[in-house]
Amino acid sequence: MLGKTYDSQTCSIARSLELVGERWSLLIIRDALFAGLTRFTDFQRSLGIATNVLDDRLERFVEAGIMARRQYAEQPELAEYLLTPMGRDLLPTLVALTDWGDRWATPGEPPVIYRHSGCDAPVHADLRCAEGHGIDDAADVNVETGPGMSESRTETMAAIFASRARDPRLHTASS
Amino acid sequence: MLGKTYDSQTCSIARSLELVGERWSLLIIRDALFAGLTRFTDFQRSLGIATNVLDDRLERFVEAGIMARRQYAEQPELAEYLLTPMGRDLLPTLVALTDWGDRWATPGEPPVIYRHSGCDAPVHADLRCAEGHGIDDAADVNVETGPGMSESRTETMAAIFASRARDPRLHTASS
Repeated sequence: MLGKTYDSQTCSIARSLELVGERWSLLIIRDALFAGLTRFTDFQRSLGIATNVLDDRLERFVEAGIMARRQYAEQPELAEYLLTPMGRDLLPTLVALTDWGDRWATPGEPPVIYRHSGCDAPVHADLRCAEGHGIDDAADVNVETGPGMSESRTETMAAIFASRARDPRLHTASS
Repeated sequence: MLGKTYDSQTCSIARSLELVGERWSLLIIRDALFAGLTRFTDFQRSLGIATNVLDDRLERFVEAGIMARRQYAEQPELAEYLLTPMGRDLLPTLVALTDWGDRWATPGEPPVIYRHSGCDAPVHADLRCAEGHGIDDAADVNVETGPGMSESRTETMAAIFASRARDPRLHTASS
């Protein structure tokens, strides 16, 4: 479980990680999205995950609306787990993780390649602003409180973001 | 720890999650990248995380090359933790998680907004192919084995990806 102060943080990253925030969860979504797996035994075989952990994750996905459970046999009672639109929408997150892993955590060439079905060109998760400019580094991104920030946190968070913006070094190690 | 079959999986998502694959890790990176935090006590205060867990995560980041440790005082000995280029490159993953959380896990308006420092337009993590086509759904993405897939896994994985490609329904729940 997450710490006590967690809920008080108004942050969509934190909320997302509450739903899919440990490695098994995103690997299950990966198997569903890219390998088309739907059945408990197939996930179990693919991941080598303990059955109680897998059961817990799948049930949590169903509760959160990330997957839907559908019974496909009666005796014995067997169910499959299907991604919902909410679950399928984790695609950009998984592609961003793939890109990062290909660049920083994989010794050689990419083990898996995503291609656009329309034109066969490789697919990546690129940062881009609404004006169409590509974003290469966090230094090019300003962070500000939005309308959904709780009133009690707005002042504190605005001050934190302003303090970050004042420091051009952005607390980065020289490479 | 991850299961035994884990290492045998040649997958950049899996490798990435081995480095940053539970919620604390990405929340620490978030605080470093968007709030500019560098010091143990600041991360601890922001996250309400147990000190031994925070210590473990920061040390793991240093070992993995995601952060660099820099001593800034001698008596008492105090250190700060700075993101490296590898760590800063998690930006697209964090923005993708923010976008998903804003859409699916946040009840109202976005609590935080990212803007391009050059033109002030909002920044999102969009999927795009090298030809410039936007990608809206996993059904528009073909998955194939790349040159970095281990020889022993290539055949199995190619068969799995082909089987996924044959099913237009893509194992999705109707919403």
